[in-house]
Amino acid sequence: MYKGIAGSEGIGIGKVVLIEEHDLTVEKKSVTDTDAELKRLQDAIEKFVAITNEMADKMAKTVGEQDADILRGHIIMLQDPMIEEQISALMISEKISAEMALEQVLDQTAEMFAAVPDELIQQRATDLMDIKSRMLKILMGIEEVDISQVPENTVLVARDLTPSMTAGINPANIAGILTEVGGRTSHSAILARAMEIPAVLSIEGICGIVKNGDTVVLDGSKGEAIVNPDEATVKEFEKKFADYAAEKELLKAYKGKPSQTKDGVKVELVSNIGKPEDADKVVECDGEGIGLFRTEFLFMDRDSVPTEEEQFEAYKKVAETMKGKPVIIRTLDIGGDKAIPYLGLETEENPFLGFRAIRFCLKRRDIYEVQLRALLRASAFGDIKIMVPLVTGVDELRAVKVILEDIKRQLDKEGIAYNKDVKVGVMMETPAACMMADALAKEADFFSIGTNDLTGYTMAVDRGNAKVAYLYSTYNPAVLRAIKRIIECGKAEGIMVGMCGEAAADPKLIPLLLAFGLDEFSVSATSVLKTRKTISDCNIDECKALAEKVMKCVTEEEVLELLK
Amino acid sequence: MYKGIAGSEGIGIGKVVLIEEHDLTVEKKSVTDTDAELKRLQDAIEKFVAITNEMADKMAKTVGEQDADILRGHIIMLQDPMIEEQISALMISEKISAEMALEQVLDQTAEMFAAVPDELIQQRATDLMDIKSRMLKILMGIEEVDISQVPENTVLVARDLTPSMTAGINPANIAGILTEVGGRTSHSAILARAMEIPAVLSIEGICGIVKNGDTVVLDGSKGEAIVNPDEATVKEFEKKFADYAAEKELLKAYKGKPSQTKDGVKVELVSNIGKPEDADKVVECDGEGIGLFRTEFLFMDRDSVPTEEEQFEAYKKVAETMKGKPVIIRTLDIGGDKAIPYLGLETEENPFLGFRAIRFCLKRRDIYEVQLRALLRASAFGDIKIMVPLVTGVDELRAVKVILEDIKRQLDKEGIAYNKDVKVGVMMETPAACMMADALAKEADFFSIGTNDLTGYTMAVDRGNAKVAYLYSTYNPAVLRAIKRIIECGKAEGIMVGMCGEAAADPKLIPLLLAFGLDEFSVSATSVLKTRKTISDCNIDECKALAEKVMKCVTEEEVLELLK
Repeated sequence: MYKGIAGSEGIGIGKVVLIEEHDLTVEKKSVTDTDAELKRLQDAIEKFVAITNEMADKMAKTVGEQDADILRGHIIMLQDPMIEEQISALMISEKISAEMALEQVLDQTAEMFAAVPDELIQQRATDLMDIKSRMLKILMGIEEVDISQVPENTVLVARDLTPSMTAGINPANIAGILTEVGGRTSHSAILARAMEIPAVLSIEGICGIVKNGDTVVLDGSKGEAIVNPDEATVKEFEKKFADYAAEKELLKAYKGKPSQTKDGVKVELVSNIGKPEDADKVVECDGEGIGLFRTEFLFMDRDSVPTEEEQFEAYKKVAETMKGKPVIIRTLDIGGDKAIPYLGLETEENPFLGFRAIRFCLKRRDIYEVQLRALLRASAFGDIKIMVPLVTGVDELRAVKVILEDIKRQLDKEGIAYNKDVKVGVMMETPAACMMADALAKEADFFSIGTNDLTGYTMAVDRGNAKVAYLYSTYNPAVLRAIKRIIECGKAEGIMVGMCGEAAADPKLIPLLLAFGLDEFSVSATSVLKTRKTISDCNIDECKALAEKVMKCVTEEEVLELLK
Repeated sequence: MYKGIAGSEGIGIGKVVLIEEHDLTVEKKSVTDTDAELKRLQDAIEKFVAITNEMADKMAKTVGEQDADILRGHIIMLQDPMIEEQISALMISEKISAEMALEQVLDQTAEMFAAVPDELIQQRATDLMDIKSRMLKILMGIEEVDISQVPENTVLVARDLTPSMTAGINPANIAGILTEVGGRTSHSAILARAMEIPAVLSIEGICGIVKNGDTVVLDGSKGEAIVNPDEATVKEFEKKFADYAAEKELLKAYKGKPSQTKDGVKVELVSNIGKPEDADKVVECDGEGIGLFRTEFLFMDRDSVPTEEEQFEAYKKVAETMKGKPVIIRTLDIGGDKAIPYLGLETEENPFLGFRAIRFCLKRRDIYEVQLRALLRASAFGDIKIMVPLVTGVDELRAVKVILEDIKRQLDKEGIAYNKDVKVGVMMETPAACMMADALAKEADFFSIGTNDLTGYTMAVDRGNAKVAYLYSTYNPAVLRAIKRIIECGKAEGIMVGMCGEAAADPKLIPLLLAFGLDEFSVSATSVLKTRKTISDCNIDECKALAEKVMKCVTEEEVLELLK
């Protein structure tokens, strides 16, 4: 059995199609007719553009518009004047082949990007390497495997799933994906989850282990794969596959049902989204509203701050899609670890403890006011609530309210409609907010606990850092106490308390959260029915008895022993 | 009035001696006799070595051995084979002058260092620029101002205070220092404080503002300087100077007195130190023990882990210096933001939330066991207590105790003496530790609150980040609640609770800390008497009444209003 990272859940059984790495070694040879060579380069670029556009269009249909844009970005990168000019200049001055000049320039540029300690910029390096290998293949006349043509029940095995590969995938034919690199937040993982294809990533040396036609079974939830399993194992995985499908089927029975415990304690079961289009999926999955709409997407992959109109349209679209159901929209939550050049954010030594989210927004009133105005205008079209991230005390909440009152007066003057009673809540995710939860509850209209950051800050751990990930656990009693305190403080003031972190969908934690009195669970759209089932299986007295025992624990181990 | 950073406290009145920047522009000229030029370079290097050694010896006397080592480090850097070879190679291949080759190589190397986002490595870049300008002066025959010869009451004004400049300083003649660059943790600031010379740093353009002979008054506590003040201002500063001196004198009356409030509540008033030699200063300043001995110095500026013997000697020296008074030694508190190449620590995206302190030590048992063994052995020579940093829960404390028990058994077997009852405490500095303070108090022998990190983690703020520094405040009610909780939990279990962060010496906070029941105040040696005076001026009932009001505040502003 091979262990990797659980990239995308589900059970896969199928035959290997290995996406081989071609030998793209560039031989050094002197070129005499540089003009002809330049022409050859231009032809290759044209072909690249044509193929890439075609792939992007395909991808827009199978995966989504934003992912297609990643591919379209490749065209822009390759046609960047600096890059093209450098390649040509090198070919002319050094009398080298198009392949060699292309490789030198792209390698150098990628190396530069890779050296910057920023995941998004480093991604550019990966993109450039993808561009390079595809351009070299075109120049060398190597045909790529056409992934769109693989047979049913194919398990794709590749070093990495590049955007250009995934473009061609027909999800109906792909039973699973195995790769040698990539983590849970890599392109490969995000794309696999979007296509609902089980995937196990970062299996060391898997490309050298499997051959075309090998049988593979994989469990994308556990991050495990078995190559050429014995018959018993195949049977076992067939049963798992059937169970997984049956569970998916069973969950359908929870569609349209109320979200309540066996003994009738009702909660709100809503969803987290990142783009307006995601709201459709929430409706499809029977989410009862939006518990967290991250607005960062509006600001990313572009050259300037989105206009009020663009933002208004996005917020309005979600409000309208949700047809009067609650929609909590979080204001811009961004910092120096994101590559958004036009915001002028500097790289920071500890970006998680830096100039981000509400800290940034309160300094950049020009940007924040536009967002708040767009939100207020959109509030006329549904039940929009405004959530402020990274709050550490009442001053920040008060500052936001002052700005909102100013904008409301402007809107009144201009005769523009908005919800005069729009609710303003706090994303509870800093230890300071937890300590001050009683005071915040007096001034906020609602709380939503961001367990991801709350866990990180409480434990003083960067969850992206593998070396300390063992400490990053919402089961840690310190974190559970923080959560309990926040819920209790909110309830004491009679405001709604929700949770929009990953913990809200965790079957082990749900009984505790119910016992603490959590009102609202905000989970991914695909987890709505599963979470509703978990809640429906709970009995509040049992939950409370369990919680009482759990809260006496002083180590994570003791907590897990009780929750398992 | 010119505003800068308060680099070193005290009042200064004197005449300007401007350390001018010489024009060290290197002219490009072709060299025909490269051998002669190489000889000229060698001569200059020899002269550099001789002068630097002389300066270092002087510095060892006026400032200290470790600071002298910074200068000696310059020799090692310049004589680094890679550097020397590169300079020579460049001179030979390009037929350029020694000046030009030196400049190119050192500039390039410095640029490389400066690009690394690590304060210590960036310091190397500053060092290299210091070396460069001194080498260029030697090569160009420019005489440096001999700082050791300036008259009494001199206010030194320079762009930056380089280690080589400070070497020559005779503190008796220097009334103050003004610079254009440098922060509170820069070399300049550290050296100025060590020599007790008032200093205001980072005054924009000050070198262009003053002329030699100008009168300057400065307030190093406020970070203010006035050039050519009127008579009234001079009078005012003379009074301030006299007051400052009088206060220093007055504080002497507190030598040998108990540290207790007016109404007789006794506390322990101890000191923070970074090197064994610092313990002498603690004794001199009447500190009642060591509340925090940072052991990082032992691991820095070297090529390998310090041996058990080296560590044992250092710990023993402090224990013996303190003659049976308590000495709390913190185990290695280091992470990826420190340049200690031999520890193999990787650069991290959020080093404050990363693999550091006890997290590192529990993984690197090889290193940790040596330190704990050295500590246990040294515990036979005084009242050594062991403090564990960055604890997030009881598991980490238990893990340390298990290791200690193992080592004790070994020592027993080997017949080596140690204190069988050595106390093991927790540095309380993470929000998790605060949440779990009741549980930790049951298993720890003492607490010491690290307010610096506790403030940073609670507020989710990197205190080194100027853009969010406004949020970094121990006066924030969230932080005060955390401190109060930790003290109360400790007291409930009857263990000693101390504080080793900067807040322990803050006159505004001391009444609160007394009210909360803090047992031990660990401050810098120079703050011992001042802190004793502050405590002596307090009445515990008044403190408690104040604390009750303060703890009702929900913003920092309200807190400060009450505390001012």
